[in-house]
Amino acid sequence: MNYKLVFHILGLILRVEAVLMLPAALIGLAAGGGDGSAFLLSAGITMAVGQVLTMLPGKNMKMQARDGFAAVALSWMVLSLFGALPYVFSGVLPNYVDAVFETASGLTTTGATVFTAIEGSPRGVLFWRAQTQWMGGVGVLVMALALVPKLGEGSVFLMRAESPGPIKSKLTPRIGDTAKILYSIYIGLTAAEMVCLRLAGMPWYDAVIHAFTTISTGGFSVKNASIAAYNSLTIEWIIIVFMFLSGINFALLFFAVRRNFTAVFQSEELRSYALMIAGASALIVVNLVVHAGWTLNLRTVTDSVFQVVTLMTTTGYMTSDYVLWPTFSQVILVIVMFAGGCAGSTAGGIKQIRVLLLVKNLRREVQRILHPRVVTTLRSDGERVEESTLSGITLFFFAYILLLLLGTLAVAWDDVGFTAAFTASLTCISNVGPAFDVLGPTSNFFALSNVSKVVLSLEMLLGRLEIMPLLLLLFPSLWKRR
Amino acid sequence: MNYKLVFHILGLILRVEAVLMLPAALIGLAAGGGDGSAFLLSAGITMAVGQVLTMLPGKNMKMQARDGFAAVALSWMVLSLFGALPYVFSGVLPNYVDAVFETASGLTTTGATVFTAIEGSPRGVLFWRAQTQWMGGVGVLVMALALVPKLGEGSVFLMRAESPGPIKSKLTPRIGDTAKILYSIYIGLTAAEMVCLRLAGMPWYDAVIHAFTTISTGGFSVKNASIAAYNSLTIEWIIIVFMFLSGINFALLFFAVRRNFTAVFQSEELRSYALMIAGASALIVVNLVVHAGWTLNLRTVTDSVFQVVTLMTTTGYMTSDYVLWPTFSQVILVIVMFAGGCAGSTAGGIKQIRVLLLVKNLRREVQRILHPRVVTTLRSDGERVEESTLSGITLFFFAYILLLLLGTLAVAWDDVGFTAAFTASLTCISNVGPAFDVLGPTSNFFALSNVSKVVLSLEMLLGRLEIMPLLLLLFPSLWKRR
Repeated sequence: MNYKLVFHILGLILRVEAVLMLPAALIGLAAGGGDGSAFLLSAGITMAVGQVLTMLPGKNMKMQARDGFAAVALSWMVLSLFGALPYVFSGVLPNYVDAVFETASGLTTTGATVFTAIEGSPRGVLFWRAQTQWMGGVGVLVMALALVPKLGEGSVFLMRAESPGPIKSKLTPRIGDTAKILYSIYIGLTAAEMVCLRLAGMPWYDAVIHAFTTISTGGFSVKNASIAAYNSLTIEWIIIVFMFLSGINFALLFFAVRRNFTAVFQSEELRSYALMIAGASALIVVNLVVHAGWTLNLRTVTDSVFQVVTLMTTTGYMTSDYVLWPTFSQVILVIVMFAGGCAGSTAGGIKQIRVLLLVKNLRREVQRILHPRVVTTLRSDGERVEESTLSGITLFFFAYILLLLLGTLAVAWDDVGFTAAFTASLTCISNVGPAFDVLGPTSNFFALSNVSKVVLSLEMLLGRLEIMPLLLLLFPSLWKRR
Repeated sequence: MNYKLVFHILGLILRVEAVLMLPAALIGLAAGGGDGSAFLLSAGITMAVGQVLTMLPGKNMKMQARDGFAAVALSWMVLSLFGALPYVFSGVLPNYVDAVFETASGLTTTGATVFTAIEGSPRGVLFWRAQTQWMGGVGVLVMALALVPKLGEGSVFLMRAESPGPIKSKLTPRIGDTAKILYSIYIGLTAAEMVCLRLAGMPWYDAVIHAFTTISTGGFSVKNASIAAYNSLTIEWIIIVFMFLSGINFALLFFAVRRNFTAVFQSEELRSYALMIAGASALIVVNLVVHAGWTLNLRTVTDSVFQVVTLMTTTGYMTSDYVLWPTFSQVILVIVMFAGGCAGSTAGGIKQIRVLLLVKNLRREVQRILHPRVVTTLRSDGERVEESTLSGITLFFFAYILLLLLGTLAVAWDDVGFTAAFTASLTCISNVGPAFDVLGPTSNFFALSNVSKVVLSLEMLLGRLEIMPLLLLLFPSLWKRR
């Protein structure tokens, strides 16, 4: 590993994080809650450490793939460790492990929380909490590099390691231009939702926070009861629409803005995403009406669609406590949490394109028995998919399930029951937020042990960075100086 | 598909099944419980249908891979449908779906039961129940073909489709000889356990039944309380040893008999199998002592080892109701149920060799980031593993999880809770037997709906035949006449 280079990147990223703490500091100072000074102190420490790291001696700045992956993995860990400082200094989360959990949950846009009383928390702290999700949504690192474009060619490795999905789409020949387009869409969507929520009656502060945490598919709210607190069908449908959009590959949103609708409607991934949402919602409506005695009305349909969209896009808001729903509805929700949204969106999970290609690949495997001598290539949206991509996807799936089970085992030590342990692990590696049973959406992760919180924080990072960069850290040969 | 050939095989297999019903008929007649005549009637019907199928006109007897796979898949379904008759005619299970569930559970050596009062059931019926497991253990079809060796070359496809594991070992150049060696080991182990259990104080009838259901890793017992009913550490350790042996690749047992111990000790699969048992047992002992207040003594160690070995070899007996154990121990048991025993044994699950190769393959995938230009081949026991085998294994893993989740969804309609639905699906596709929560080892599957029972029966067959042959039946092109 090129230590000098990686430290330099870590230093840059910390300096960016320090600056990004200032809005929360201002809000804290304005509200006079005492958290303003906590943010100023945290920003100072973070800036100082960042400054030191960028000033370390050395000169080789050539980046290889391994350096890019390691820099991304370490950056996200360091960002979580320093982003946790304001929670501790403000006294909101005195246990540093809690603070790191909340920060990792924010940056990875998971939305699992250890806050036991959200509405009593200082306004600066709640803003920072939402802002970590908005920062994490499209990739802090690429954002920082867009500001400091010194690495040139090497940044392709960073982008590859940080952006979700098995097939990276370059909308334009230059990475910087692609990034700018994506950020424009991201900021545009956020602004549009803010206005819509404000018009639907939400106060400005709440509208900003929820726009931050919808478009990033994060799910942090300023209310203990999440979106249910507003008790407004209009607000719920606005959020459903924006969650749905945020779970779509941003490249497709770009095509839609350019009025290239054939590309949009021909996307197999978008079709599977929409079908899965429609199918899951319909099954839950039927189950709630038949098994739980709900009336078939707009409220029932809204709750079903809302929970399916919020868990499948891995946002994780709540309008209805699905832990009280029948088992069948809960299993549907668990399944959509596995699948997740589209690649190239802000959503987590395994991603629709992977599920699609896994199913196609399995079908081909069975067909080999029927036609042993025929060699077929797999296609997605008409384009040939490389065999190495396919084997990478199936191995990713294995790694996902393996880590899910290991995480379940770690949380199980807290004796919370199989359902809670399993879904806590799933909700963190899929970057959703709430789990089931005693860790459902009306509860929180505060009562878990520090070990569980550390393991779940790692699972959130594993899920957000799609596993490989973090697994790489386990290989001793990575750590050899080059 | 070559219909004439497939029907011919189905007919042969039914005629064999009819003959195999006679021991139970004799026991029933001797005990005078009235089930004797039920067996004679069932045998008569089965023989008649088998006779008709073998006499259908046609002459092309050339077998292709697709015919072999289809014949195996359909044979196991037909065997379950006819093997269910004695349960219905004897009045023990008046619901035909229950009877098919119990038969599929027997033949696939799963051991999940719908019997609510085992000890009150007729002796002939309980014998048949155990005998279905013993028949299913090494493959009924290959057994039948060894008796009627008319298919010659084609039988290699049948064996490939029916025998477990990704890499088929041929101990001798001729399939028939390999089969004879395997049957000798199978019969030898069964006889040895019978004698040991009798010497430890079990009545002959119980000893025969439990030897049948241990060596086949089936798990049916003649007692409601399973092995706990005997309250004997000696019996428990005898069964632990024989379950352990039955979960080992029979090829290795053959080498051991031949005193070729280097082959045995160099087997990576055997090492991982033994290590997983030791590790899981140790963790459970620690958890029971620390969390549940158990005393560290022989009883605690025995219960831990027994439950780990019985669930990992996918046998499914009980000496202690693990549903009452802490969550951590239960998650360990769930994980070993995923992994299962060795390939080429009578155990189910994903199999140790697959887990090993998946982990190795994942490690190689991460190493590709470190050394992008190095091409490495994977080795198992020193031998190169083909890339097509590796991709087959990862796709098998995906299919396993996909079917597990779909099965969970089906059972969830019965509103039994997530844990029970998920583990019921897992226990059936892994051919274990008991599940968790309300479907734990002191309970049974009787209360589930007919739909759930059909789905779980299919999962047992999918698990036993390692998925592909049954998935093949879904392809319309298979059904075209050749």
